[in-house]
Amino acid sequence: MREPPIRILGLDPGLRRTGWGLVGVEGTRLTYLASGLVTSSDDLPLAERLRELHDGLAATVRSHAPDEVAVEETFVNTNAQATLKLGHARAVALLVPALAGLPVAEYAANLVKKTVVGTGHADKRQIQAMVRVLLPKADPASADAADALAVAVTHAHHRRARALVRLAS
Amino acid sequence: MREPPIRILGLDPGLRRTGWGLVGVEGTRLTYLASGLVTSSDDLPLAERLRELHDGLAATVRSHAPDEVAVEETFVNTNAQATLKLGHARAVALLVPALAGLPVAEYAANLVKKTVVGTGHADKRQIQAMVRVLLPKADPASADAADALAVAVTHAHHRRARALVRLAS
Repeated sequence: MREPPIRILGLDPGLRRTGWGLVGVEGTRLTYLASGLVTSSDDLPLAERLRELHDGLAATVRSHAPDEVAVEETFVNTNAQATLKLGHARAVALLVPALAGLPVAEYAANLVKKTVVGTGHADKRQIQAMVRVLLPKADPASADAADALAVAVTHAHHRRARALVRLAS
Repeated sequence: MREPPIRILGLDPGLRRTGWGLVGVEGTRLTYLASGLVTSSDDLPLAERLRELHDGLAATVRSHAPDEVAVEETFVNTNAQATLKLGHARAVALLVPALAGLPVAEYAANLVKKTVVGTGHADKRQIQAMVRVLLPKADPASADAADALAVAVTHAHHRRARALVRLAS
């Protein structure tokens, strides 16, 4: 039996810019559907910036109606303040799809790189190049949107691997 | 002209437990109104835990109708993982009142201690004791709820100081 096509929304969270990318999956076939950025204003108080991210992501989820969402588990270790900021953005990226009742998966940045480029140490340019190979119609506006598409591709790959394990058992 | 009484909701964010405390302010008079905890389940995925915190805080805001909200800017520096978790909980604590259209103020933990106890190095027990002195009817269920009441008291104090500055200028 063929599985019905689904739409996967990938998110690359950041307080200033959260990238998003929508990929269609039908069997082993991946299709680029859309990508973009949700931004927050540097000059607003933190609570207002988080509301901007929330509203932008909620509008993206509403208008693109994904079936599943995948969020990149970015890891920052430079300093506590940067880590805390990233935690804020990631919380909104996880919360918005959860509030919409959608399943949310998380993938470590290394796993995303390994799945898309083949090595856990790929840089942003290599990810953008491979996203263009895997999704020829993709023309992501920015590196953040390319990363978000890479997260969606990673989820497409791993959910299929899980489904195959289920079929075999 | 007397200022109308207002209700301040204080929040002490944590992924496992977020404390909340509601204080009434009329001129210089503070009144304990309510306090409690919103919890999330250890065994759920992160996105679901954030949804639990969101739903619990949204219900608290709805049923207690605060006019202003104050959030403790807790600072953790033990490790990146703990800082990231705290960032998630704080994001939800800032986002929920912002989505309800309420003004949200942030106060550093040191300023809360200094305002309530008189020194920036007070421990949890000293804060609980002073909250009972300042708000005699308060019987906070936990240290987290006492901290949340302390944040509300801090905001009551500082918003008044700001108002006096406005009157004088």
